[in-house]
Amino acid sequence: MDDRETGLTLAPRYDAAGLITAVATDAATGEVLMLAHMNAEALAATVASREATFWSRSRGRLWKKGESSGHVLRVCDIRIDCDQDAVWLIVEPAGPACHTGARSCFYRRVTAEGLEAVGDEVPGAA
Amino acid sequence: MDDRETGLTLAPRYDAAGLITAVATDAATGEVLMLAHMNAEALAATVASREATFWSRSRGRLWKKGESSGHVLRVCDIRIDCDQDAVWLIVEPAGPACHTGARSCFYRRVTAEGLEAVGDEVPGAA
Repeated sequence: MDDRETGLTLAPRYDAAGLITAVATDAATGEVLMLAHMNAEALAATVASREATFWSRSRGRLWKKGESSGHVLRVCDIRIDCDQDAVWLIVEPAGPACHTGARSCFYRRVTAEGLEAVGDEVPGAA
Repeated sequence: MDDRETGLTLAPRYDAAGLITAVATDAATGEVLMLAHMNAEALAATVASREATFWSRSRGRLWKKGESSGHVLRVCDIRIDCDQDAVWLIVEPAGPACHTGARSCFYRRVTAEGLEAVGDEVPGAA
């Protein structure tokens, strides 16, 4: 263990592309809504604005979630993991988090036989 | 949207290193416990054994979580996201999920002033 793990200094361990992973969960239900990536600018914007802002790898630019749909993720809390290469956003979503219109991107179950749709079940709230 | 997003065929979109991201949450509280990576073999082992198995990038080998500590993650449910590059494991942890001994790897809050320890608070269970 080093200071990055035990200390209270923010020192994200960005990958070769300058990114860390971000996971957003619903503050009310615990459901995982989506995973995305952040560069330093996206993390700073999220901390300052309290609205989830990511780095879009496909578009190559900063991307405030909901900037076009209005489905912003209001950030209640931000956590960082032991080796500081991932952050956890606890959010209040203004609408579906997934671009497919689903509440969460994780709308299918993996089984030994393949995938199955899970509908509106919220497993995280068990 | 394509079949990978709408269909029920498991077709993970592995990155250049052959990996997808996995996030594990506690089935009882909704707390995010850890993030790790899976290759095809790790995903298959997790589906078959119902115990979380990852690919250790640092060790370059398959890694069953808890293989040495005994702190396995029993898998209650597995979800995959829209573009199939991330999975969500809903688990019952047999002990602390973090190698530091913390229950979750996400034991620090990010604020505008830096990090702060969060102790035993479980935000996902709000």
